[in-house]
This record gives sequence, C-alpha cells and structure tokens, in this order.
Amino acid sequence: MGKVIVVFVGPAGSGKSTLVAAYAKWLREGDASVYTVNLDPAAETLPYEPSLDVRSIVDAREVARKYGLGPNGALVKSMELVTERLEEITSKIAAAEADYVLVDTPGQMEVFLFRDLSWRLAEALRGISPESYAVFVLDASVIRDPADYAFLVTMATAVQLRLGLETAPVLNKIDLVPDVEITGDLLRDFGRVSRALREAGSVYAEMLREMLRVLLKYNRRVEVPRVSALKGEGIEELHRLVLEMSCSCGDLS
Amino acid sequence: MGKVIVVFVGPAGSGKSTLVAAYAKWLREGDASVYTVNLDPAAETLPYEPSLDVRSIVDAREVARKYGLGPNGALVKSMELVTERLEEITSKIAAAEADYVLVDTPGQMEVFLFRDLSWRLAEALRGISPESYAVFVLDASVIRDPADYAFLVTMATAVQLRLGLETAPVLNKIDLVPDVEITGDLLRDFGRVSRALREAGSVYAEMLREMLRVLLKYNRRVEVPRVSALKGEGIEELHRLVLEMSCSCGDLS
Repeated sequence: MGKVIVVFVGPAGSGKSTLVAAYAKWLREGDASVYTVNLDPAAETLPYEPSLDVRSIVDAREVARKYGLGPNGALVKSMELVTERLEEITSKIAAAEADYVLVDTPGQMEVFLFRDLSWRLAEALRGISPESYAVFVLDASVIRDPADYAFLVTMATAVQLRLGLETAPVLNKIDLVPDVEITGDLLRDFGRVSRALREAGSVYAEMLREMLRVLLKYNRRVEVPRVSALKGEGIEELHRLVLEMSCSCGDLS
Repeated sequence: MGKVIVVFVGPAGSGKSTLVAAYAKWLREGDASVYTVNLDPAAETLPYEPSLDVRSIVDAREVARKYGLGPNGALVKSMELVTERLEEITSKIAAAEADYVLVDTPGQMEVFLFRDLSWRLAEALRGISPESYAVFVLDASVIRDPADYAFLVTMATAVQLRLGLETAPVLNKIDLVPDVEITGDLLRDFGRVSRALREAGSVYAEMLREMLRVLLKYNRRVEVPRVSALKGEGIEELHRLVLEMSCSCGDLS
C-alpha cells in the first residue's frame, strides 16, 4: 500500500484541525507514521504540531503588514501566494515517508473550495498517490432536520466534483448534540429522511430518494462517521471509512 | 401576484451585492417597486442604498469593540445577534410594500449557510410570501472544466436543501471570462460535460448524467443565467429565471 492522503474540508468552526489532531494521534498509537500538513496561512494556534506548516512559507499576518491589507484581504492574498508556491508544498508531501498524510485546509472553506488552490492541490495529490481522498467535515449541530442530512451528502458530492477526489461526509462534534437523530447509516437514515419529507408533503422527498439512489450506486459506502474529535470518539469509524475508500480506489480510477 | 422574494447566496467575492444593485436598478427601470435588504453586518460599502440595513441593528465593528473580538469572532457573534433579532428584520420585510424583495446575504457564505440564520430566515420568508426563492451566485472564473459545472449545479441543490427555497444557479462576472465554454443551457452543457468526462474515462460521467436526469425532472428550468452585474449584462436572463421559478411555485408547494 502506498501513501494514503486525506484532505479535510469543511466550513469554519467544523473542527477540521481538532479532527486532524485526533486522527493523527490515533494512527500513531497504532504505529502508523503520519505526516500532517497545515494549509491555513491564518491559523493562530493548532492542536497538533504540523510536519509541514504553510505559515513557514506564507504567513497571513506578514502579508497583511506587507501589503497593508485587512484580515480578509490578507487571507485572499495569502491564498494566492500559497497557490503560486504550491509545488514547494506538494514536493515535500511527495518526499515525506509516511503511511498517512493528513491535510488540514484553511479555516474558511470558501477561500479554499472556490479558488484555484483546491483543484490544483487535489490534482497534485492524485499525482503523488492514487490513494488520495477527502472528507467533508460538518458540525453535527448543523443537522436539524431530514433535509439537512441530504444537504450534508449533497455538499460532500459537490466537494468531490470540485476536487476530483472521492469524498465522504463526516459529522463532527457529535458530543455536543447527543440527541441528533442520525444513526450514521445512510440507507436507514435516508429512508427515514424521505419518509419524513413525504409525510410533510414535500416535493423534495421523491427527488431526494432518487438522488440517494444515484449517490449510493456510485458510493458503496453507506456509513457516515459520527465523531467527537475533542473527546477522541468515533475516530475508528473515520478510519474505517478511509480504508473503505482506499479499497475501492481500484474500481474508481 | 404577491411579493416575490429573492435571496442571493454565494461565496465571498462572487459579486452578490453588485448583482443585487444591478437587478434592483433594472427592475426599477421597468417601474417595479423594489425593497433591498442588506444582511451583512460587516459590509463596508454597498453598491446600492438598502431599504433595510442590518447594520442599523447589528454592526460588526461595534460588536468587535464591545466584546473585544477580532474580525472573525466579531462576525460570528454578529450573526448570532442578527439571528436573535430576526423577527425585527422579517416583520419589516413583511410590511414592505414592494413587488420585489432582494435579500443580500453576508459576504462570507459559510457564516450564513451553515448557521441557524439561513434556515430561520428562509422559513420566515416562506411565511411572508410563497414566492420566495434563492439564487446561488458563483464567479464564472471558478468554472474551469466540466466537473466544475456539475459542482455549480450540485452546490445550488445543496443550498436548496438547506433553505427549503427553490434555488437556481447564476454565473456572475461573465465579462471576466469571455471564453468560458458554457452556453448556459443545462441540457446542452451537461451533455457536453458528460461526454467530456466519458472520453476522459471518468467514472463520474455516468453519475453526472444520472444526477442531471434527477435534477431536470424536478427543475424544469434548464437555463443558467450568465450575468455581468458590473456591466449590467444578462440581468434580463436573471429576471426570466426568477419569473420561471415564480410560475412553477404552484406545482411545487
């Protein structure tokens, strides 16, 4: 098995960095070697010690000073500078001797996902290892009703289309919403979801069912890991998901 | 016809505010009355004079000072305060005598979409008018290959699931990418898209075709407006889209 690369994508506050920290710790406890990458030039503190830190190449605070920009302008400018120096970053990832590479993307998802860095990075990672994947991390408290569950899966599909990397949804911070009505089993949950929508008389019920059918046809994974990165819970589920993606890569390429 | 409400959602830099300004101007030139709403507590300048400005209720700069927060913390806190005072905002929208209400959401999409404000607002708007819709605005330069086109449509579907409002994709800043290979006709473009993917041997080709089939079954609209808000081009296409959503609302409710 070559290097397995996992890119963590998700909106601000979804707990990507904490999840990278918890997963790296878990993998190392199992004697795997892990290379962690921080891609956020504006990160203040990180819950892990990155093997490669983009801030040593581009620091948003220095960019703000140098170009006289506010925090948002500095972030956007920093992302451009990171994109220009992407090869420097990916060549280090390629050279890293590790079983797993975990890539932590910028706090603000949209400065990554909707800009060139996202697909350029993904393209480079695919070149480094065919076993490159992404997870779409969402704070479980965002899930409030059946449609939100479909939202989660649809967002993961959007990320997959953007990156060209197989992408699975992960629910984080599950400790904060102990009563979230999600079993993590897409088949079962979606069944309940579409029943609930149908009962509510929503036109989306049938659309969701049909979308589920398509998504499941091309994703044999039906489990959504329910994780608490903070408490270190559910990390094994996350790892099982990564292994499952890894097993199916032969069929997908 | 009651009030038509359109919520503009899109990532930072997609040109939501410029589009609201251009569309409001266009509608007024056609003698329609328009009520514009700015929901961004951190907006610095706006290219239109909002009828209702959230900054008169919650100003991110004041929040930063009062709570001693940095720009991101202040934005998140401001969104919470806006959510608490949502009824004040929606009751003004309900009372507004206008043919069209255009709602401009916060610059950073993720502080809106992944937080309670998004679905609470959408719920309130549906209560005000059954003719409430959303558009997902994306900078046309993000579209670089066939999969990105599917990404655009999938993102619009995700927004639709989150808001529970019929949502159509709109490509803005088309003036900056005159050579973008998109006709704006979903059927034709998707056909080309899935052919390109199939020729590239991608497993996504078939998945995209099937997703298209589902999307088209539930969305009779097949045109993606190609707009330049800055140059005022394509606004008529945008308006046609809004009218089309408006015509189909009877069937969808």
